[in-house]
Amino acid sequence: MALIIQKYGGTSVGNVEKIKNVACRVRSARQDGNDVIVVVSAMGEETDRLLDLARDITDQPDEKEQDVLISTGEQVSSSLLAMALKSLGVNARSLLGHQIKIQTDSAFGKARILKIDSKRLLRELKDGKVLVIAGFQGVDEKDNITTLGRGGSDTSAVAIAAALKADICEIYTDVEGIFTADPNICPDARKLNKISYEEMLEMASLGAKVLQTRSVQFAKKYQVPIHVRSTFKNGTGTIVTKEDQDMESVIVSGVTYDKDEAKITVTKVPDMPGIASKLFTPISEANIVVDMIIQNVSTDGLTDLTFTVPQADFKKAMELVMVTAREINARDVLADTNIAKVSIVGMGMRSHSGVASKVFTVLAREGINIMMISTSEIKISCVIESKYTELAVRVLHEAFGLGENKEL
Amino acid sequence: MALIIQKYGGTSVGNVEKIKNVACRVRSARQDGNDVIVVVSAMGEETDRLLDLARDITDQPDEKEQDVLISTGEQVSSSLLAMALKSLGVNARSLLGHQIKIQTDSAFGKARILKIDSKRLLRELKDGKVLVIAGFQGVDEKDNITTLGRGGSDTSAVAIAAALKADICEIYTDVEGIFTADPNICPDARKLNKISYEEMLEMASLGAKVLQTRSVQFAKKYQVPIHVRSTFKNGTGTIVTKEDQDMESVIVSGVTYDKDEAKITVTKVPDMPGIASKLFTPISEANIVVDMIIQNVSTDGLTDLTFTVPQADFKKAMELVMVTAREINARDVLADTNIAKVSIVGMGMRSHSGVASKVFTVLAREGINIMMISTSEIKISCVIESKYTELAVRVLHEAFGLGENKEL
Repeated sequence: MALIIQKYGGTSVGNVEKIKNVACRVRSARQDGNDVIVVVSAMGEETDRLLDLARDITDQPDEKEQDVLISTGEQVSSSLLAMALKSLGVNARSLLGHQIKIQTDSAFGKARILKIDSKRLLRELKDGKVLVIAGFQGVDEKDNITTLGRGGSDTSAVAIAAALKADICEIYTDVEGIFTADPNICPDARKLNKISYEEMLEMASLGAKVLQTRSVQFAKKYQVPIHVRSTFKNGTGTIVTKEDQDMESVIVSGVTYDKDEAKITVTKVPDMPGIASKLFTPISEANIVVDMIIQNVSTDGLTDLTFTVPQADFKKAMELVMVTAREINARDVLADTNIAKVSIVGMGMRSHSGVASKVFTVLAREGINIMMISTSEIKISCVIESKYTELAVRVLHEAFGLGENKEL
Repeated sequence: MALIIQKYGGTSVGNVEKIKNVACRVRSARQDGNDVIVVVSAMGEETDRLLDLARDITDQPDEKEQDVLISTGEQVSSSLLAMALKSLGVNARSLLGHQIKIQTDSAFGKARILKIDSKRLLRELKDGKVLVIAGFQGVDEKDNITTLGRGGSDTSAVAIAAALKADICEIYTDVEGIFTADPNICPDARKLNKISYEEMLEMASLGAKVLQTRSVQFAKKYQVPIHVRSTFKNGTGTIVTKEDQDMESVIVSGVTYDKDEAKITVTKVPDMPGIASKLFTPISEANIVVDMIIQNVSTDGLTDLTFTVPQADFKKAMELVMVTAREINARDVLADTNIAKVSIVGMGMRSHSGVASKVFTVLAREGINIMMISTSEIKISCVIESKYTELAVRVLHEAFGLGENKEL
């Protein structure tokens, strides 16, 4: 008998019929003799509907109250799923963030899980119940309701799996697993049977939206095996697990892209200690995550600094940068929102040379100019003009032989 | 500086504009120098929308999960109102049933409040905050979410007022106060300036739906003065308070009616000890509230038993009665759903004779047959054919001079 955590996303519980379908899936896992904990997201577009209500009230909704508001979405779906299970004869109950003390910090709207009361969960499991937990939500130490940010239910599920040392954390979604590239762009994209935490982490933060980045960090830290699979089709999906021998032999596992960033360049910045700090401190204090940062070699004591931020934070970031640029006597602040980041990810890159040059060659052959480059041990990212995104993904996917019918 | 509890019903917070309007009202009470606690119902038809979702899942939704589901309605409205207040510069915060420990029993769907953590509320008030409390909800001793039944937010408000010894509990609604009769039936119905708890209690349980019966019981027990008034118009409404000299002099305060009951008659029941108990125990165990019970004088050791139950419970009650009727060898079970109960209520009835006979005379003059009669110290109720309801209300309203332009 295994302990299985199953997480169902918004499209999987999008309406009453789909919730009943999920209930059948859960029942069958239970009938196979497993202990089952289910984590659910809000139904379909519910979170957006609630956010719209908040924005109709005021342009700048209070973040703390907004969390109280949007956490109702998961409360609704978890109670409905528990009802559906009970009507199928499954002993089930819903549990909310405050009931199982999913304790988080107080960063409303993007809180981090600090600890989970696993005793309560184990007690309920011991009673033979299937637990249906409202994802995405927790409480801070003052018992205020918090939410974990977009995709936060993934993190809820993985954190619960970690706290209870579950055998597997199944993430049910509307795709069949993790693919070598977006199948909408590369029709021959291949589903991966297995991928390492490290690769998944890069892919998630590079724009593959199947899993929330933080959930992968959590899974990696606590070695929780994740199975990403389809709610609507049977068959296995992709296992996210720790690196093994097989993975080493594959140079590139996937190609991802992200069109949600914008680029800001500050020109002719005095090249002296403390300048970067002056520039980036106000931005990080505004809770804006800077992705890539590039500084050119300085000439005449002046340098250019370029970095990318999420499109959603672009306007705010520009305002902050304009102020600092004046203070430090930079010449100009240039902005570009028509960019995309295309990346390749793979464990094998560590031990194979020539991967980067192959990327540059392939892109150059198509006349695609590379504006920024960022590399890590297992990924290479290039910022290019947005209009070339699909082309770049396709040629890279082909150049590294990802579309061929070979298994990992 | 007074402590004011304000309760806003579903129509008062029916949409975003109305919530903003409520926020202005609350701010003005605050600006007058008062401590203010607001209790809100769910927006408009939200509770019904959620109940429909539950019924789409299953014919018999689990009551415990249904409470988890429908309590989200008040969570949404309380967070939106708190946001609206903050955007007006009012230091406000929402509080849910579990956060202030509105502790109830475990009768899901119709829980009773046992106690309230007034310390938490006082601490927040001391911080200068306006508190926006989600009405209708609480938690049982195991931290399960409970709800208080239709109109339960009234009870939340009164209970909080009692716990904090508030100066006044204002119930904002879509009518201007308590009237001598339903103005839709009696165009000359008059708003009462004042009414006693006892009268209000009778009126509420007899069909005047402005206040939940239990909230009036609570107010009476803890001597909480209630002010029923309009959200949309200024001016005072009706004060519900303890009996005073003035009230004694008024014989009849109002006429009410209730079309939501059904009548069941068991004929030729053996008239011996234990029979009534056999008949009513299964009904009360099914949580069905029996209203009027009438037993005729027995002939030949056999008697007829007639009683009324809510229409909503009629089918279930019939099933139970059929079983018992066979067991006790009763001849027949007769049902009638086309009935209405028309009642007059007034403190002065205690000291005035002839009120009952006047009621019977007035109804007889219109050819209205009385099927059942029930009286208490301060009310007389008659069950009549449903089609005569409006006529009966009008003639009684006129006969007792309620429509004249005299003040209490």
